Amino acid sequence: MHTLYSMQGSGNCYKLRLLMAQLDVPFRLIDVDVVEGETRTPDFLAKNPNGRVPLLELPDGRLLPESNAAMVYLAEGTAHLPEDRFARAQALQWMFFEQYSHEPYIAVARYWRMFAPGGPDRKADRFPEWTERGNQALAVMERHLAERAFFVDGRYTVADIALYAYTHVAGEAGFDLAPYPAVRDWLARVAGEPGHVAIDWRPQGG
Amino acid sequence: MHTLYSMQGSGNCYKLRLLMAQLDVPFRLIDVDVVEGETRTPDFLAKNPNGRVPLLELPDGRLLPESNAAMVYLAEGTAHLPEDRFARAQALQWMFFEQYSHEPYIAVARYWRMFAPGGPDRKADRFPEWTERGNQALAVMERHLAERAFFVDGRYTVADIALYAYTHVAGEAGFDLAPYPAVRDWLARVAGEPGHVAIDWRPQGG
Repeated sequence: MHTLYSMQGSGNCYKLRLLMAQLDVPFRLIDVDVVEGETRTPDFLAKNPNGRVPLLELPDGRLLPESNAAMVYLAEGTAHLPEDRFARAQALQWMFFEQYSHEPYIAVARYWRMFAPGGPDRKADRFPEWTERGNQALAVMERHLAERAFFVDGRYTVADIALYAYTHVAGEAGFDLAPYPAVRDWLARVAGEPGHVAIDWRPQGG
Repeated sequence: MHTLYSMQGSGNCYKLRLLMAQLDVPFRLIDVDVVEGETRTPDFLAKNPNGRVPLLELPDGRLLPESNAAMVYLAEGTAHLPEDRFARAQALQWMFFEQYSHEPYIAVARYWRMFAPGGPDRKADRFPEWTERGNQALAVMERHLAERAFFVDGRYTVADIALYAYTHVAGEAGFDLAPYPAVRDWLARVAGEPGHVAIDWRPQGG
């Protein structure tokens, strides 16, 4: 069985819980509390020297950090990852967009509003930049989705999961999605996909 | 022929120039000056709504932004991208590490020291964080390379190119590589690969 080292509430960890639920990949969940420093213990750093969750452990014990890389691994050979060479590269393009142009603003703002000890006041000087850059990312998504049902290949793929993870909780980061109707329609389409589970979902016994 | 929209000096753009040189993929280079705002013109935003270089244009006109996604596209079926499912995911893991945990500190510090109008003083309050996080990334690389010649699969792949691009010029970003001997040895190995070209290399006529 797979093991997922994960923090409940984390969008990056949710990506893998959602994908494994939809792919019917059974897994056990091990909670790792980032706020309590549990990703910085010697035991955890031995598993992932970069000290982050999610971390996917395969049934044979091999370890794979980085949410989007682990999603690609799990989705190989399934309908969630395009087979066509160019469409696969486009799925990666949107996953790199997510990690570089979206997550560092929307997810980080959400972390400081929702989870961080001391609260958002500790980072008050950073919120204007996060708000501006986060809205730039949402505007890029809006423009792309105005003409498309999903990000790549005309269908639901890991690129949609990557971007759904923090977009659907952008309100918790202080973002207003009212100016992004195509994004809101797409969020509803993703939530309507077969086997969809919510961000607080855990596997049975997990 | 492929077309690469690129800024000379950019490590992200260099990744694709280096890979295409090594794969013998002919391409023409179109210079786009980020500092002069040339990635924010209506013409360029029509090609890449996220307003960034590099941008790869395929011979048939299809467009692919995001340096690491474009590298994977170009390297499919070559020795530069592992065939094995897990090794491919590990190559992606290190490319996501590069874009999330390395580039935003080392490349951004270099940009403000070397290229940005107004110079590094405009971002003096950010350099301590960039220095700390950049050194964390270098320490993760050092630990990994202490036991390995290359990042993935025991051989030179796109993961090495992705991390080489800004690591070999980390001095320009104010980083001292003396504490990272395994990283320095790996830099020399990468520079010794067949067909290696330097960051200022341009294709003939480009």
